[in-house]
Amino acid sequence: MTGVRKAVVLLSGGLDSYTTAAIAAAEGFRLHALTVRYGQVHDDELAAARRVAQALGIREHLELGVDLASIGGSALTGSLPVPLDRPPDSPGIPVTYVPARNTVLLALALGWAEVLDARDLFVGVNAVDYSGYPDCRPEYIAAFERLAALATRAGVEGASFRVHAPLIALGKADIIRRGVALGLDYGLTHSCYSPAAGGRPCGRCDSCRLRALGFDEAGVPDPLRSAGGQPAP
Amino acid sequence: MTGVRKAVVLLSGGLDSYTTAAIAAAEGFRLHALTVRYGQVHDDELAAARRVAQALGIREHLELGVDLASIGGSALTGSLPVPLDRPPDSPGIPVTYVPARNTVLLALALGWAEVLDARDLFVGVNAVDYSGYPDCRPEYIAAFERLAALATRAGVEGASFRVHAPLIALGKADIIRRGVALGLDYGLTHSCYSPAAGGRPCGRCDSCRLRALGFDEAGVPDPLRSAGGQPAP
Repeated sequence: MTGVRKAVVLLSGGLDSYTTAAIAAAEGFRLHALTVRYGQVHDDELAAARRVAQALGIREHLELGVDLASIGGSALTGSLPVPLDRPPDSPGIPVTYVPARNTVLLALALGWAEVLDARDLFVGVNAVDYSGYPDCRPEYIAAFERLAALATRAGVEGASFRVHAPLIALGKADIIRRGVALGLDYGLTHSCYSPAAGGRPCGRCDSCRLRALGFDEAGVPDPLRSAGGQPAP
Repeated sequence: MTGVRKAVVLLSGGLDSYTTAAIAAAEGFRLHALTVRYGQVHDDELAAARRVAQALGIREHLELGVDLASIGGSALTGSLPVPLDRPPDSPGIPVTYVPARNTVLLALALGWAEVLDARDLFVGVNAVDYSGYPDCRPEYIAAFERLAALATRAGVEGASFRVHAPLIALGKADIIRRGVALGLDYGLTHSCYSPAAGGRPCGRCDSCRLRALGFDEAGVPDPLRSAGGQPAP
């Protein structure tokens, strides 16, 4: 097979998925970005995903809805309050975990990849500076690859799907350094789980705190903090 | 753990999922039925799922939307015409295959099971008298069980999920015999991929033809055929 290799990249509008997409583009893939409206309590993420897709020159950006909020069980879909000021060494998996979210997202990406005749998926999961979510670990990604081969017509016909998780073993500071080296503008992204009106980050949820620690450790200013909030769309 | 065991059952409104749910109930599980509106071109299936859930006395029936039609690639979501009068021995996987559908459905069931603190999922897949869909095979179900343990908080905490597929090794006639023995009213179900107005089965799609062969072989009249169509809701 000749020509450009296509890849489906899950794009949330956060720092990690933006960096992942940029890495995929730098590797020469033609990107098809998938953003899933799964019932997030705010839509700042979706606006950020659109900004990021535009900045990366992604021509095909599919937004798709799945109603995980009706399943409940997560602070990110409104069933529970988002914890603020949680100590970084808190035990257990926090209530921002969305049950089976990455399995749903990767299943949708897999379905679209099959339709596009793509064999590569990119996802910005990370198992270092993260919240302990089970579906961000290397063994999970490997199990999904095995499932994908069995789940699809393409797999039956001999194809194998690769789930690329280029950030999985990187700390947040290394992710940021990598993105800065690729020329990314992190002012376009959104990380906060509990933003104020206008998308302004709270600075107190796990996601804001991991982001702040990462920028500090990388020795790079966070454009969202220096600008005093989210840029206008 | 004492008390009633909960199970999430995927309920499409077809003959197989109805029988599967009845088997789960007969095994003593308390059923939580999940019906997914994934972009089917007609909503006769959804009406049938409601009838069936009511007939089985299922108290909790969640209908949840996911927009697989925007991914495309399937006759069942309107991207391609439904094939009629396809010879039963046609090679390959037909265009009624929906890319990654069962992975999406099982992922949603898994998420809900985790929220409900259930460890059992039931799905009416069948690898004998079926259309050759890859995500109906025993090896696929086993791979999903392995993924589920890695994907979830419950799995990290030591739980394992069981995906029950009680029909997987049965022919359509055996499924029907089993359901009749359980007292099921197959007049409540809907199988056709391409129904006429009012839900009347076409009799010519793969699903109608497998159903008809199954009833013939079981020596049982299909109440949908003898009644000349779908019952009033």
